[in-house]
Amino acid sequence: MAKKSKSYKPKAEAPKGFQDIFGQQVKARQEMLTRITDVYHHYGFDPLETSAIETVDALGKFLPDVDRPMGGVFAFQDEDESWLALRYDLTAPLARVAAQYRQDLPTPYRRYAFGPVWRNEKPGIGRFRQFYQCDADTVGASSVAADAEMCMMLADALEAVGISQTDYQVRVNNRKILTGVLEVIKLQDDEQRMIVLRAIDKLDRLGVDGVRHLLGAGRKDESGDFTKGAGLSDDQAAVVLGFVEAKGVTTQGTCDTLKELVAGSETGQAGVEELLQMADLFAAAGYDGRVEIDPSVVRGLAYYTGPVYEAELTMTVTDEKGQPRHFGSVAGGGRYDDLVKRFTGQAVPATGVSIGVDRLLNALHLTHTRTVPPSGPVVICMLDRARVADYQAMCTELRQAGIRAEVFLGGGNMGKQLKYADKRHSPLAIIEGQEEHAAGVVQLKDLVLGARLAQDISSNEEWKAQPAQKTVNRDNLITEVKQILERPDGSV
Amino acid sequence: MAKKSKSYKPKAEAPKGFQDIFGQQVKARQEMLTRITDVYHHYGFDPLETSAIETVDALGKFLPDVDRPMGGVFAFQDEDESWLALRYDLTAPLARVAAQYRQDLPTPYRRYAFGPVWRNEKPGIGRFRQFYQCDADTVGASSVAADAEMCMMLADALEAVGISQTDYQVRVNNRKILTGVLEVIKLQDDEQRMIVLRAIDKLDRLGVDGVRHLLGAGRKDESGDFTKGAGLSDDQAAVVLGFVEAKGVTTQGTCDTLKELVAGSETGQAGVEELLQMADLFAAAGYDGRVEIDPSVVRGLAYYTGPVYEAELTMTVTDEKGQPRHFGSVAGGGRYDDLVKRFTGQAVPATGVSIGVDRLLNALHLTHTRTVPPSGPVVICMLDRARVADYQAMCTELRQAGIRAEVFLGGGNMGKQLKYADKRHSPLAIIEGQEEHAAGVVQLKDLVLGARLAQDISSNEEWKAQPAQKTVNRDNLITEVKQILERPDGSV
Repeated sequence: MAKKSKSYKPKAEAPKGFQDIFGQQVKARQEMLTRITDVYHHYGFDPLETSAIETVDALGKFLPDVDRPMGGVFAFQDEDESWLALRYDLTAPLARVAAQYRQDLPTPYRRYAFGPVWRNEKPGIGRFRQFYQCDADTVGASSVAADAEMCMMLADALEAVGISQTDYQVRVNNRKILTGVLEVIKLQDDEQRMIVLRAIDKLDRLGVDGVRHLLGAGRKDESGDFTKGAGLSDDQAAVVLGFVEAKGVTTQGTCDTLKELVAGSETGQAGVEELLQMADLFAAAGYDGRVEIDPSVVRGLAYYTGPVYEAELTMTVTDEKGQPRHFGSVAGGGRYDDLVKRFTGQAVPATGVSIGVDRLLNALHLTHTRTVPPSGPVVICMLDRARVADYQAMCTELRQAGIRAEVFLGGGNMGKQLKYADKRHSPLAIIEGQEEHAAGVVQLKDLVLGARLAQDISSNEEWKAQPAQKTVNRDNLITEVKQILERPDGSV
Repeated sequence: MAKKSKSYKPKAEAPKGFQDIFGQQVKARQEMLTRITDVYHHYGFDPLETSAIETVDALGKFLPDVDRPMGGVFAFQDEDESWLALRYDLTAPLARVAAQYRQDLPTPYRRYAFGPVWRNEKPGIGRFRQFYQCDADTVGASSVAADAEMCMMLADALEAVGISQTDYQVRVNNRKILTGVLEVIKLQDDEQRMIVLRAIDKLDRLGVDGVRHLLGAGRKDESGDFTKGAGLSDDQAAVVLGFVEAKGVTTQGTCDTLKELVAGSETGQAGVEELLQMADLFAAAGYDGRVEIDPSVVRGLAYYTGPVYEAELTMTVTDEKGQPRHFGSVAGGGRYDDLVKRFTGQAVPATGVSIGVDRLLNALHLTHTRTVPPSGPVVICMLDRARVADYQAMCTELRQAGIRAEVFLGGGNMGKQLKYADKRHSPLAIIEGQEEHAAGVVQLKDLVLGARLAQDISSNEEWKAQPAQKTVNRDNLITEVKQILERPDGSV
């Protein structure tokens, strides 16, 4: 009933900027998500899963650096001509849910969520248009205690996935202080303010001089592309850079510097007070050092209104090409008191954190040696096609004994079948040809031991001894297989 | 820095046909996916995760009953004007992957995958435009042993999620027999053949008479809508219905009837032979009864070429409105030998199964009483805002002892805080006001016991005794909390 094949052949390719993830990688991500969400659960957060698709209206336009049509999202029209789009983060859908179900949800509403998000950006090396986030948010809590909790939970989550305390830092700032700085330099234009925000957010990548150019007339990059600056005077830029570089040796010192910078701005002063309160909470719970006040953190998203925070991996990793690499930010978040208000008109305080799961996974992949080797199924060779039912029954027997197993179902001779087993990282192949069957035995080929012996072999004689292969009684199959699989070095 | 709010307020609503899933429901789905994929893993399948987005070209057009623009998918144009779409199943992306990586993947390639898929269909009650599938496929195995394995694995997966052996049946048929039937009645037109296929696929819903109309001139439904039929003569239709109703008491009997029906068609005879081979495999592995030959199964998708299979829940469930309901199909699959060929030009045999996770979850929800009650975090009441750092530290202490806990971070008095704890299904609230703090004690309010006592209470006096609340030494907090949480009835 299949359609007639046409001569035209579609390209077997994922679209640009999208990736396929196989085997161990899929498992590693699942494992990471489980560990992070276990921490979120432990802190009292409950899961929420919204659909990938939202109305464009509900999502709003908050992405930084939007130079693409549709504001950086993948959008399309529904039957009734209304616009839908794939979510670009998990925060916008949460704001919609908090507004939609506000009569039924507990207040505060503490939820975690994870899943893919989509950005309609220019694809690049290591830059994908679908990636995973794992978020936790508290909606309906105005106290900075809620923000402080996010920062500490973020530290716990990073440690839960295997980052040591010396290899990361959670850095905290407050958007109110930036607002204060902009008040002090009398910058009122919204567009200019956004350019300043985005310029500071690029400090990591561009350094102080790069940011200085972006605060002033603009910046030409290596490719010759010019990015328009905020047009600040040198004096104005100096105040902003003073803010960015305000981090001192102690929190109190940092906050004193900030207070001076925003002298005269009520909002700015309130921001500094909030930072000090948060620092107290970190100290009381034993997180100081791991969580630090740092005025260079601003985060790129437009919707933050108070504390902002970011987790940076501080260790240097060696990338796939052997180059040392500073990994940078793997998670971030902040307070966004106006997002729910968009829907309801009433202010609803909210704060939350988002972990960039794929980035974090990549960092862990580059720093840790894989401890668990991939382990494939036991493979029962297909030597006599007429006896496939017997092989299947043998396989069922193995599975029922808790052993991962399969019958080889492809085509090809013994050599091809053993190559398949190798490719699958099978620990063991089972061989039962006509002779064995007649004698009531099976041959077990220990592929792990076999591979090791092959490496150590110095003479052809030894190889021929094939100690990795043994003949056992068919009736003892399960016991014998288990004995090989449970070898003491734990290599399976 | 947030954008100025406009007077316009977006609607706080998920788009039509999309749902939000909360708390326990999210966990139940994750649990189900884990159980199913554990079975797949056990059978030797490895995970694969592709992106949600594919090129429209790669997806192809195989959806049944497509009366929507873009062939029932959500599609949109990329920057370079090429068309992209959200995947409508997990099979089409697998076919693309099998073609793209054919040099590197083992043969056979055995993969499992799960995740949401999207259909641009008319939303309806219980009919969503995003839903979860959980698939396993073997690519590169032409033997019906691969198909038989799928059917048996499907049975195991259903049992793993809690369906008892008497409550489901896996039913198996073969498209080659249908092809034989169409040869016998000399129906060659592709469009007519598709109408016949879809008509048979609706047997469950429309009954034999409904199908008969669709095989003939057409059918008018209750709403008056007319669906065009295949235009078969009564004689032709009789042969097709004879095929659909060929199921006899024994497999041999069924196959004898089928053989007669497709006499003269080589393809048809081959299909019957394959059914018999599969029946042997089911019997040898002990799955007969659970897995049965049934010619009424055809599956709606156009791309199947050989064995097709379907899992049906046979028990009657009571739906949310108290109505008895026959649940029907929750999983299905089949052989699709031409899907990879679309890309490569070379035939690549493949077969696979897809479980409709959300449907299955709904069925389990309707049949089983929930055994694990929801359990929320311990809530530390916020009685003295100046002491928030102390409460946080207390909370950290609880968490470090492995106890799920949070400080109440919202606004409101004691009553509001306890209401919050109730709404969160908290087992326990901790109260430490100024008095308690001065005395070095805390009060523990056992909310589970409290709720039970409140049900049993007959007099106000008893209520006032408040046996569910006790004062304990602050230093013994962890021990005392654990004692309450580990109550013998396991209610937390």
